This record gives sequence, structure tokens and C-alpha cells, in this order.
Amino acid sequence: MDELKTAEAPAPSARLLDRLRGAWRDVAGQFGASRGLEPHLPADDAEVLRAQMRECLAGKGGEVSARGRAAELGRSYLALNAEGRGRFLHILADEFGTDPAQVDAAVAVLRSAPDRSWRQDAERALREALESPRIKLLTQFNALPQGVKFLVDMRAELLARAKGDPPLAALEAELRELLAGWFDVGFLELQRITWHSPALILEKFAAYEAVHAVQSWQDLKNRLDSDRRFYAFFHPRMPDEPLIFVEVALVRGMTANISELLDESAPVGDPSRADTAIFYSITSAQRGLAGISFGNFLIKRVADRLGHEFPNLKNFATLSPIPGFRSWLDDKIAAGDALAGALAGRLPGKTPPAESLRPPLMRLCAAYLTSRHEHTRRALDPVAHFHLSNGARLEKLNWLADTSEKGLTQSAGMMANYLYRLDDIDDNHEAYAGQGRIAAASAVRALAKG
Amino acid sequence: MDELKTAEAPAPSARLLDRLRGAWRDVAGQFGASRGLEPHLPADDAEVLRAQMRECLAGKGGEVSARGRAAELGRSYLALNAEGRGRFLHILADEFGTDPAQVDAAVAVLRSAPDRSWRQDAERALREALESPRIKLLTQFNALPQGVKFLVDMRAELLARAKGDPPLAALEAELRELLAGWFDVGFLELQRITWHSPALILEKFAAYEAVHAVQSWQDLKNRLDSDRRFYAFFHPRMPDEPLIFVEVALVRGMTANISELLDESAPVGDPSRADTAIFYSITSAQRGLAGISFGNFLIKRVADRLGHEFPNLKNFATLSPIPGFRSWLDDKIAAGDALAGALAGRLPGKTPPAESLRPPLMRLCAAYLTSRHEHTRRALDPVAHFHLSNGARLEKLNWLADTSEKGLTQSAGMMANYLYRLDDIDDNHEAYAGQGRIAAASAVRALAKG
Amino acid sequence: MDELKTAEAPAPSARLLDRLRGAWRDVAGQFGASRGLEPHLPADDAEVLRAQMRECLAGKGGEVSARGRAAELGRSYLALNAEGRGRFLHILADEFGTDPAQVDAAVAVLRSAPDRSWRQDAERALREALESPRIKLLTQFNALPQGVKFLVDMRAELLARAKGDPPLAALEAELRELLAGWFDVGFLELQRITWHSPALILEKFAAYEAVHAVQSWQDLKNRLDSDRRFYAFFHPRMPDEPLIFVEVALVRGMTANISELLDESAPVGDPSRADTAIFYSITSAQRGLAGISFGNFLIKRVADRLGHEFPNLKNFATLSPIPGFRSWLDDKIAAGDALAGALAGRLPGKTPPAESLRPPLMRLCAAYLTSRHEHTRRALDPVAHFHLSNGARLEKLNWLADTSEKGLTQSAGMMANYLYRLDDIDDNHEAYAGQGRIAAASAVRALAKG
Amino acid sequence: MDELKTAEAPAPSARLLDRLRGAWRDVAGQFGASRGLEPHLPADDAEVLRAQMRECLAGKGGEVSARGRAAELGRSYLALNAEGRGRFLHILADEFGTDPAQVDAAVAVLRSAPDRSWRQDAERALREALESPRIKLLTQFNALPQGVKFLVDMRAELLARAKGDPPLAALEAELRELLAGWFDVGFLELQRITWHSPALILEKFAAYEAVHAVQSWQDLKNRLDSDRRFYAFFHPRMPDEPLIFVEVALVRGMTANISELLDESAPVGDPSRADTAIFYSITSAQRGLAGISFGNFLIKRVADRLGHEFPNLKNFATLSPIPGFRSWLDDKIAAGDALAGALAGRLPGKTPPAESLRPPLMRLCAAYLTSRHEHTRRALDPVAHFHLSNGARLEKLNWLADTSEKGLTQSAGMMANYLYRLDDIDDNHEAYAGQGRIAAASAVRALAKG
Repeated sequence: MDELKTAEAPAPSARLLDRLRGAWRDVAGQFGASRGLEPHLPADDAEVLRAQMRECLAGKGGEVSARGRAAELGRSYLALNAEGRGRFLHILADEFGTDPAQVDAAVAVLRSAPDRSWRQDAERALREALESPRIKLLTQFNALPQGVKFLVDMRAELLARAKGDPPLAALEAELRELLAGWFDVGFLELQRITWHSPALILEKFAAYEAVHAVQSWQDLKNRLDSDRRFYAFFHPRMPDEPLIFVEVALVRGMTANISELLDESAPVGDPSRADTAIFYSITSAQRGLAGISFGNFLIKRVADRLGHEFPNLKNFATLSPIPGFRSWLDDKIAAGDALAGALAGRLPGKTPPAESLRPPLMRLCAAYLTSRHEHTRRALDPVAHFHLSNGARLEKLNWLADTSEKGLTQSAGMMANYLYRLDDIDDNHEAYAGQGRIAAASAVRALAKG
Repeated sequence: MDELKTAEAPAPSARLLDRLRGAWRDVAGQFGASRGLEPHLPADDAEVLRAQMRECLAGKGGEVSARGRAAELGRSYLALNAEGRGRFLHILADEFGTDPAQVDAAVAVLRSAPDRSWRQDAERALREALESPRIKLLTQFNALPQGVKFLVDMRAELLARAKGDPPLAALEAELRELLAGWFDVGFLELQRITWHSPALILEKFAAYEAVHAVQSWQDLKNRLDSDRRFYAFFHPRMPDEPLIFVEVALVRGMTANISELLDESAPVGDPSRADTAIFYSITSAQRGLAGISFGNFLIKRVADRLGHEFPNLKNFATLSPIPGFRSWLDDKIAAGDALAGALAGRLPGKTPPAESLRPPLMRLCAAYLTSRHEHTRRALDPVAHFHLSNGARLEKLNWLADTSEKGLTQSAGMMANYLYRLDDIDDNHEAYAGQGRIAAASAVRALAKG
Repeated sequence: MDELKTAEAPAPSARLLDRLRGAWRDVAGQFGASRGLEPHLPADDAEVLRAQMRECLAGKGGEVSARGRAAELGRSYLALNAEGRGRFLHILADEFGTDPAQVDAAVAVLRSAPDRSWRQDAERALREALESPRIKLLTQFNALPQGVKFLVDMRAELLARAKGDPPLAALEAELRELLAGWFDVGFLELQRITWHSPALILEKFAAYEAVHAVQSWQDLKNRLDSDRRFYAFFHPRMPDEPLIFVEVALVRGMTANISELLDESAPVGDPSRADTAIFYSITSAQRGLAGISFGNFLIKRVADRLGHEFPNLKNFATLSPIPGFRSWLDDKIAAGDALAGALAGRLPGKTPPAESLRPPLMRLCAAYLTSRHEHTRRALDPVAHFHLSNGARLEKLNWLADTSEKGLTQSAGMMANYLYRLDDIDDNHEAYAGQGRIAAASAVRALAKG
Repeated sequence: MDELKTAEAPAPSARLLDRLRGAWRDVAGQFGASRGLEPHLPADDAEVLRAQMRECLAGKGGEVSARGRAAELGRSYLALNAEGRGRFLHILADEFGTDPAQVDAAVAVLRSAPDRSWRQDAERALREALESPRIKLLTQFNALPQGVKFLVDMRAELLARAKGDPPLAALEAELRELLAGWFDVGFLELQRITWHSPALILEKFAAYEAVHAVQSWQDLKNRLDSDRRFYAFFHPRMPDEPLIFVEVALVRGMTANISELLDESAPVGDPSRADTAIFYSITSAQRGLAGISFGNFLIKRVADRLGHEFPNLKNFATLSPIPGFRSWLDDKIAAGDALAGALAGRLPGKTPPAESLRPPLMRLCAAYLTSRHEHTRRALDPVAHFHLSNGARLEKLNWLADTSEKGLTQSAGMMANYLYRLDDIDDNHEAYAGQGRIAAASAVRALAKG
């Protein structure tokens, strides 16, 4: 999807990198000039790098100096090209992991602990032995301007390289643990975004929005109008970088069509008279935080806040894409499914499907959305899985709801509403997580059965 | 000391507790009414508590509900008396630690790992097994208002109880690891405090100041005057609670007497003409963060900032207490030391010592400050140890520098200046940390030799 | 009173004046060194001053330079003693007024204007001729740091000197017109004050509070507790100086006794359950703004805001002093009034009156509060006049309501509640302003009749 | 021009008007429903309006109610069309001016004043009589949200209608006096604008920029880069509306070509190494404040601030358009001037002039820029007049400096640098204002002589 797939973060411009390097040069300044490594990091330069890393860890001169050296090391990394970065990361992964001898020794102590009290001391020592030097080194970046963002982006780079590369995968996993601690939802700040927000921030939303692409500043302004709400989570050490954000329309009745919401010329509604909050876009903005979940919290905290601000709101629902339907359908057709087979060759690519296709498509889509993987017991559709595991209910299927090229390609133009009903969230979550039971309105259920 | 001994945090008033419980009641509200435990936590109530803790961990209904239950559990804790809290903490310590079977199994997998890649996966699994349920449970408090402060205070309570109680000591150690991650200096915010700062915050400085007690609001205002600087570290999730703070006077020449600085009627100097910044008080405000050090960072960052603001500043030095001198001297006398023995019975308690005692006292004090423990190789005096390990140099010893009762009792009225010279910090730190060499001005050295 | 009598602003400390002069020296710096006048402004120095004033007005070098010269002139004024300031003000008053010839010429043009259009041009020219040079000069102070406060304080000084000195009275009147324009209520900012407010600001409230003196920071903190509200008006160019402020208690029922509200150990109420907002203190903080009224606006805006925040509030009332009762009563006794005469010699000074005196005192006080001056038709009591002209109603008289020395001396310990009922405010105001009719509850009316 | 001609404020959208009317409806709400006038204000509705105005002035029910009625009146105005507004303004102008009888009476008192003291009282009374009811009425708008902006826009409307309409001209003049007092430069706030500023504000700069039109958000971002500075004046009661703003480039050497500065792909310079600040655009944003000057202050305050921030800056200069050159040249040609005549028919419209035309064009332009009106003694060119009266010097003439269509049309592509040298500003200003002497570099002078 969309609500799960993280936005493709725009590549940082050369100008931005220049500035970041500049800022870190100031921090590093007093600790000796940069060594000017070659971008692809040939063997000699790699040796220089190893020395830098060891110095960072040696902590010579106290922690303040150490952070200066971290800035220097960061500058080295940023100046490398893709090949050089691969080498940099492998040096970290191959040579700065835990010390097996130390771990084994701690394990030996643990195994021979005579009682519970000794054992607890031994566990503590073992935890310490299991914390790798590279993580201690990377932690030092949190004190640098943009240092936390640097680590988040480094993890994004690791994720892209980890497949089939166990050392990088191990480094990636350790970095994930570190970031998961820092980005625990308790430390995040929920901010309302408006047209009064800094242009710098709004520009990022436009770049990151992954569900319904932002067409222009005017489009963005429309999404911040008085009958809309726009919320994002931020981390105190990454104040200019949204982590995840949600766009909400305050309307009367359940919105069945996304173009109504994106139409800049539509009249502005009166939010105090709205009875329904439609969450029509939710985007994770940081690839480097994949697998660290905030979406669940964001939706519930926003719903809670809106409920207080607008006592007339009765329903909290999404208007969501159905990203996996068309490829599932194609598989179905290929597999010779009877019902699906009738559609073979009749589905246009970039124009809305004919009205005559509505009954079979709606039925198949309802069936798709209420189906689970046999093994994982998860809903087949990733967006469905996201909302169902949050405790929402599949409420309604909408025909010709998103006739953009993307909407037609993904789901033949259909979209779904998921309903968040406070009283049912816990039970729905339990039933889905425990027995894989999918909460769906009876109309959807009936539709699926044909 | 003082610069190491953490302030005795004032006991929270009943009114404050009422409010905190109130705030948490609102969070907990939707998750069922409080069970109203007895303050001393009899067996039946302990059973209720165990159930609460298990529910928190079960995560039923998603993480949002879990945090609501954490608020409920926190309210239970706050309503207990000392006896009840002891029981509460022991339940956590005895019953919610790591699962030995799970740890042993992870150890077994690690020991049989056939190669490095398997081994890294096994280490990751072992790290996970070593993270106790109680730490997962306590982590949930970070999302509550004042929740981080709650954990800091809980650790203070554990520290007070841990001696001779291995289970609580183990819990304390785990909580320390958790807090050390959260309070990594990279996440802290350096704030300048002025008379424009909120009364709420200033009130806390007055309560926490441990080196030179604040006598009145007028005294505090004097310390915030235009020829002074006052800086503190804060954590984003504890915005109203200073972690550590330092008071600086901008003067000409090295201040030798604390009363000059505390005299409210003294004329205000012109900071732009000052050549010396005197750090005359540094206080750790949170007992529950003992052992997690920021003082080193605070001094260096403040020195850096002042150096930029006032280019005329040439020296950065402290005017510090010598908290351990008198008790060392008494031990010396008791042990029959010749030089010290001459002072036996001649040291007044609450009046300044006679001028005739100046030579032997100065000599003995210089000797004390330049002495180390045989084993730890640390300076005997804790304040000396703190500054020497930061890379400062013992610069000067001052006679009749603090004639308050406390000053006379601790150090016969003497105080010391430690000098922070940017160029020497690294070498001094190295020499002290490595070989235990104490950096001292030649005059002090000569004094010590008599 | 109190609600009308402006607070005695604390004399600015010498230290503050030093700073202000310092700041202005920086502004003035580039325009030549200060001339160092003698504090009592002898004739020679007066000549220097005249030249400074003329230069300010000449506007040589553009307006920026002119403001630099204004800063210089302000520094001269601040360095003068009482005698010197008198001379300074008289130079302004005697020599920098309007130019009679210019005014007369403009009048002549007006009188001969042949039609309405000419006449309007002539009026415009006349308005310009009537704006004195001294006002143009003083206007330049608004660009200086603290410059607006400087003018406000200068008017306070003029008010103190104007009686029997027509030139200073004329200058005072012109300055009043200038300030009335700047301090039009549309430009003021309503701020809520809490324990989070800057100490600098809170210190001023403590100094200015004129109705119930602030005893300590603890007393002030009590007035900012969660069952209280504290609001003040500020001007954007005097951000650290409150203009007027009001203290409100959120209670159940009409408070009849001030000590309940000032008792720091009283339990904190739940504001969401309050049905009554008691305005128990309202103080004008700037003597130099006497006669420019904001109190009316402050009370109504605060009532409006509280009504939105606490929908359960039903009544908005004051608990007010009765400052003029005792002196009225003494006059009555001296004049041989029968009822009052019975009290002659029976009213204690500093102890609460005996219960036996309750009926006659209550009756007389009710009579006093419902009486008007024959000519002005205003209520005799200044606080009564203030609230009645705002449209409030005299609601209740309270026995032993303020037994502080001040309360006993002013009003034999009695206080009054005035009720603000939104629906009646306009009619009450009209009736009072038009026919001098005093709105009072029937019980008070009955009491007055005996 | 440009630096004097005020930006054409964009017409407010219908949506904005809707909101403003909505906000005022809330204020007006409690004072009775809107009467729904016809847009063109027929006679009956005009009668309703008169009654509204009279009620506003009657002040019935206190000032708070009066402001509610002002909101109601403002809503009436906003709902009118051009015809209706003309009638609205004429009612104000014709029927709510000063009372001639009252003015005449005050004049009579003044003329018969026996001494200075009486005279001063009479002047005060006359000033009061000369303040028209309509100004009292309009003043009430300052308390409404956007009320000050409402008056500024009303003056813009009056300016457009005043020519040949003496009553509206008189009303306009009075409103100008009122606004001049409120917008005295001492009350304005200088703000630095960056890419962190609210989008709402940046959008307005893009709309208002009158010298070099903003092409896109990217163009605007370029003007806010780290080697640029962007400052604006704001009024506290119009926080979202810039009054005037200036764009500055920090460069090495005197910039001779505007396209260098507007090129988004040009490399970013290092501002700390710049020696020259080029003021390349200055725009007044509010037509309704025409004739109330801030530009002078803005340039000098910004120069002062930059000088402190960047001690390496040595020159403060503009790169300015020459808006009147081409029309002056055409007049010259038409009048048969010999030198100019040689250019007749050889000046292309929209393409840069040939190199062969450089000598005569540069010579003629230098002559133009150093010429004055015979009567007013002002420089012929309005931009030249603006900078010369600020004390700047005409420093350099630049060939092919602005080859945009506008640049070619106005000045055959030439631009001028004006130099602000702190030491000479006062003398230059004096010489220009007093004797009309134009400060120009000798090279420009030589050029003009040919």
C-alpha cells in the first residue's frame, strides 16, 4: 500500500549534503582536519576509517571529544559514493560487532551461577557483553545536529542492502533495536499541521505523501482548510522531519469518493456540523523506521482529540485504497477461477470500468478483502491488515471511488471504508489477532457471498 | 560532595500527588475503575496487583489500552505507603524478571551456532530473552504525563532500598540501564535560566540547590543577574524538572571567596569586561539519575557557549567546596599523624579558624586534595575527583573562602579553584584516568610539600 | 478604593535605572557622547537641554537619527533629581507647546472657508497646527526599549505635579490624549497568568496588587492554583508591565468572606464543578494611565472566556471592598445623624465590631452603597460606582467579610458582592448612566430601609 | 516604481471574505441578527445603515456592546458591491464629519481666551471638537479580528475614489491621520523571514512582491537561502500581513546584474565571507498605507542588524530599477533633444539594446538620474528620489543589468546601485533635502557629462 508502504523519501540534494557536512565540520573542527577520503574508499582510506572508528570508541579525552570525532566520521560517510558506503558499512558490520570471547565468557559465568542473585548479576554482565561496539559508536551521533536523521537514513540504506548479506542484516537489526528504543511512541510529539506551519515542513509533506500525491502548494493548502485536519508525529531530535502523518476530512456522512476530498474548488464545509471524520491518507515518512509502528497510535490519538474538539462527531472511518486487489485478481484469473475468469480481458487499464462490471468486481473485491493468508492468518490486503489489526471494521466498499490512474490500476477504481468504533476496537483487535477473524459489516459480508 | 552528591529532592506534597493521580485517572478512566488498594498492600490486594501487571504485559486490545492500564497501575503505586511500595517493588523484582528457561534456551542456541551469521541471529534472540517483562512494563510509563519522572523517582526509591536486597538491586540496575538510554546526553536540552523563566522552574532550583542553599527569591534573583549565567539540562519528557544545573559568575580575576558571589547587595559587574567565568555551584537534581553522568558535558558546553558570547573570557574555573577534608583530617589525627596531630583540639566548630592555623591547614588540605586512594587511584576528595576526571587542574586553594557553617564543618572554611583549560583537558583527563596523575598548579604542589 | 485607585508603583531601583540608561546609551551611542548634566539642572545645563530638544524636533539626518537623539534626551531626564525634572518638564511645557500664531492663522483660514470642501481642508490644517512640538518629540520615545513605559511614568510624574500648575496640567492633558490613543483597548492583549509565568512578571503583580496585598510567593502561588484564574492586560510595547489585572476564584455559591480565598492551606476546589466566578481583586497597575479605562473591558472579556471554558458557571460576581463607608459614617456622626450617632464611640479600630452592632452597621452600609452624589448622580462609593457603571447589580452585603486591619478601617469589616448578569448589563448601565438609578437586589434595598 | 509604488494587493478571495464575515458574525452575534442589506444599498437600506452608525456612536450599553455593533456594521460593508460601498463611504463622509457649530463654538472660546492657561484649555477643547464622529466610529474596528486590516483596505478604497470627490478625500485624510498614529514605526516589529516561516506568510510575499515578481515557491525559497536575508515590518494587530519588506543578497563586490541573484541554480555563497549587502528589492505591501513611510527605517535597521551579524560587511548598497528613464527619454526625443534624437527608432522593445547604443544610453541615463524637477527639486526618478532622500549616494550605472521585459521597457535594461555609507547618510540627506544636491559618485557624474 500506502498506509504501510513507506514513502520514497526524496534523495537529499547535493546542497543539503553540503550544509550538513558544513555543520559537522564546525563540530569536528577542533579535533583535527578531515582526512579527505576518496569517494569509493580504497584500501588505504579504509585503513584511515578503521582508525577513526577505533578512536571514536576509545573515548580518549572524554565524551565531548568523542562526539567531535563522530561528527568527523559522519562527514567521511557522507562524502562517499555508493561503493564507498558499502565498504564503510561492512567495516562496521564485520569488525565492530560483539566480542565472541567476551560473550562466551559471560555465558560461562551465567551457566555456573549458584543462585538467583548471582544469576541476575551474570545476566546484566551478559547484556553488556551483547551490546556491540558499533552500537556504542552509532549512539554518539544522537548529539550531532541532524545526527538522529543520519542514523535513520543509514538504516534505510542498510535495509536496501541487507537481503542476502547477513553481516549487514545483523547490523541493520541492531540499529533497529536502537531506534525502536529512541522512537518509542511515548517520546513522540503529536502536532497539528496548518497553513501557518513552516514552509520547510509543508514542503516535506508534499514530498512524502504516498497515498494521494500532492499536486501543488494549492492542493496542499486545500488539505489544510478549515474543514480538514492534518496531524503528524515528530521526534524531539528530528524536529523538521515528520515520522508519520494523517489527513482527515470533517464531513457529513461516509465519504465514498476520494475526488470530492481532493477537489480544490469544492466549497468549505462547517466542521462543527460534521458527524464523520474521514481519515483519507496516512503515510509513513521515514523508510529508515520501517517496522517501528506508530500508525496505530496516531489514528487513535487523533480520533480522541477530534472527539473532544467536535462533540458532534459520531463516526471515525477511513477512505482507503485497496492496493492488492488487481494483482490478486490477475492471479485468480490465471489460476482459472470461474467467477474471475469471466472478467478476463474485460478490465480496461486506464479508464473506469463499465457499469456492467460492477456486480462481479464488487463481489470479488469484497471476497478479497475478507480473505486471509492460510498460514499467517493475516488479511490478504496490506491496508486491510493494518486497519483490522488496529481494531477497525471493514465497513463499506465504494464503486468508482478513485478513478486516478493509480486507483484504476490497483483496485479497478474501488476504495474501502474502515470504521473505528471505540467500543469495539479491543474486541475486534483480539478476535483478529487471536483467531484471525475479520470484522466486516454484514452488507460487505453479503456482497462477498454474492 | 555536592557536585557529585545529588540533591535531596523535596518530598512531593500531598497536593501534587493528588493532581498526578487525577491526571492518570483521566488516562486510565476508560479502562475501568481503580480498585482502591489498601495502602500497605495486604496479600489479597497484592493478588489484584499481580493481575494488573500481567494485564499490562498481555497487551490485550493494543498498545493504547496497555498504556491506560499502566496509568492505573501507577495510580495504585502512588496510593501505597512505604510498606506497600516495598511489596509492590518486590513483586516486580521477584516475579517479573527474565524467564530463566527462555534465557537458557537462547544460550543453548548461541553455543551451538555453526557460523558467524547464525551466531549473530542467536545473539539477537539472546538479547531479547534478557530483556525482562518488568522493563517492558515500566517502559509503558513514558507515554504518561509525568511518567518519566515517575520512573526516575521509582529508581530513587529502589536505590534507597537496594543495599542488602539483591532482587531490588537487580531491578534497580535494569531500570538504570533503561534510564541511561533515555537520558543519553544527546537527547538533553541545554537551557539558560533567567529571571524571565517560569516561577514553577525557579522554585525547583531553589529546592534542589545543594551546594550553596538558596535563602530567598531575592537570593535566587541575584544569581540570575546580568553578570551571572545559569544553565540547566532538561529532558523533553520532563520539561519542568531540571536534571543538573550550574551557576556561573562572570568576573575579573579568579574569585577566592564565595560570599562575594552570594552577596545580594554587591554591585553588578559588566559581563563584557569579564575575563574569568567562575562555576561556583553545580548540582544534580534527580536522585533517581545517580550514576548517569551529565556534569562533564554541562561544564564543557557552557564553557563553549560563554566563550562564544564573551570573547574576552580567558579563564574557566570553579570555586568548589572540599567536602571530605575535615573527616580525612579527623582520621589523620586519630591515626596519630604528626602534622595533623598538632591541630587536635584546636579546630573550632562554627567559627573561622585562627590565622595561626593557616599554614598547617593549608598544607594539609593541599596534601589531601592531591592524594589518591591506593586501589582506585581516584582523588580522595569526591569533588576533586569529579573535576580532575573532566580534565581540569587543581589551581588554587583559598583560605576563609566559605565561612558558612557548612563550609567550616566540611573544610575549615577553605575552597578550591579548578581550572578548565581547553588545550589541556584531553591530556589531563588521560593522565588522570590512565595513571592516576593529578594535575595541580606548582604553587599547590609546593604547598602540599610544606 | 482599590478597584479604581491605581497601585502605588514601586519606585524603580537605582539598579534598574542604571540598566535603562545603559540600553539607551547604546541607542544614542552613535550620535555623540552624553553631555553629563548636573542633577538639578542649573541654567547652563537647561540651555544644553533646550538645544537637545530642538535638535530632536529638527529631524536633521532623518528619523533614525532623531530617535537616537530622543534616547539621549531620555537619558538626560533619567539622570535628573526631582528639582531637575521639574525644570525639564517646565521647559517642555512652557517652550514647546503649539505656536499661537500658527493656530490663529489656521483659525482665520477656517473662518473664511467659502464652502464645506474648503472647510474640511481648513480643519485638517487646524488639527495639525494644534499638535504641539512637544507631543511630536515625546512620540519619538515609542521606538526606544522601555520608551512607552518611560512616557507612562512621565505622565505619573506630571499628574503628581499638575495641581496648581496650569502649564504642566496642559502638558499632562496632551500626554493623556497621546497615551489614550496608544492604549486603546483594541491594542491590548489579554493574558492568563499562572505559576508557569515568568518570575519577572509575577514579581510585578506582587508589587502592584493594591486590594489584598500579596504576603509572599506562597500567597501568590495560592492565587494561581487550579481553582483560580488570574488575567491581565498587556500592551505590545510594554510586554513586562501589566496594565490592569483581575483575580478570580471558581467556587460553589457566592463567597461572603475574603479570608477563605486567601487561606493558603484551604483545599483546592474542582473548577469544573464551580457554579460561580468570584472576582475578588482588580488592580490598575500604572499610575501614568489613570483616567484611561480598561477595567470594564477586562471584567467582561474574562467573564466571557470563563463562560466558554466552564459551561457550568452560572454567576459572575465580585467580592469587593467598600472603601468609603467609614469616612462617610464619621461625617454622618459628626453631622448629628440620629441612626449613625448611636454608633459614636462604639466602633473599635482594629478589632472586629461586636455582633450587637451588626443591624445598624449593615443598615447604614446598605444605605451608603445605594446613595448618590446629588450633583454627579454617581454612587457615593467609588467601587460601587465602578461596578454599577459597568452594568453590575449590588447583590449582597457581607458581615465580617474582611477583618484585616485595612478592611476594618475602611468598612468595619464588611464587603459587597456585585453581580454581573449578561442579560441585564446593558439596561443597568443605561439606567445608571442616564437616570442615576442604582441596581440593587431587593434584600439590599430592604436592608437600607431598615 | 516599485520601491515607492505600492504592490497591487491581490483581491481577497470570496472564501476569505466569507470567513471574515463569519468571524465577525460571532462577535456581532449577541447584538442582534444581521439585517441583510441589498448589495447596492438602495435608499431604504441606507437608512438602516445610518441607524447602525448612529447606534455605534451612541455607545449604548457600554463599549463592549459598541464593538459588537461595529462588527455588525463591518459585515454590512463587506457584503456590499462597488456601488453600495460608494454609498456607504459617502454616508460616513457626508453625515458623520465634525459638527461645524461645535467647532465654531470652540473657536470662539479660543479667540477670547484671556491668558495662556485658558488658551491651552481652549485648544484642548478645540482638538476634541475637530475629532469627527466617523473617526471615533472607525477606531472601534481595531478591537475586531482583522479589524485594522479592514481599515487599511478601506483607505485603499478611499484613495481610489478620492480624486475629484472632496468629501471622500477629506474622509481619506482623516483615516490617514488615524493610521499614521497606529503605524508609527515605533510600534512595528522587524522580523526575519526564512523558509521556516509560515506558508501563509510566504504566500503573501509572493503575491505582494512588486519589483521582481516571484515565479514559484522554488524562486521564493532561493531568495531565502543562507546567503540571503529577507526582512519585513509587521504591526502587532496585523500579524499575518507584511507592511513592507526588503530582500538582501550577501555577496562579494557590487552586484551589477539582477539575474545573478534570481538564478535558482546559482551556487550558494558563504555569507560570512561576503563584503557587500545588496538590497535588491523593497516593496510596500499595503496600498492603504500609502504615504505613511517605513522604507527609510527598514533599510537602516536591516543594515544595522546585518553589520552586527557579519562584521566583514563593508558596503550596503542597492541594485535598483530606474522606472522613469524610458518615458523621460521618449519625451526628450519628442521634444527634439539632439543627443536623445540620435536614438529615435533604434531602441528595441523587448530585446536587449545593441552594444553600439551603450555609450549614448548610459550617458543619457546618468544625466536623467542626476536631474531634478525644477520646482520640487526632487530627483526626476522616483526610486532615485527615495534613496537620495534616505541619504544614499548614486554609485554606479549597470548596462544589461535587467533584461526582463519589464527591465527593458522601463530602462532599456539598465539598473543603478545606490550606496548607503553610514558616515555620509546625514550629510547627504541634509544636502538633498535642503539644497536638492544629488550625491553621486564621480564616475557617474563624469558619465553624465559625456
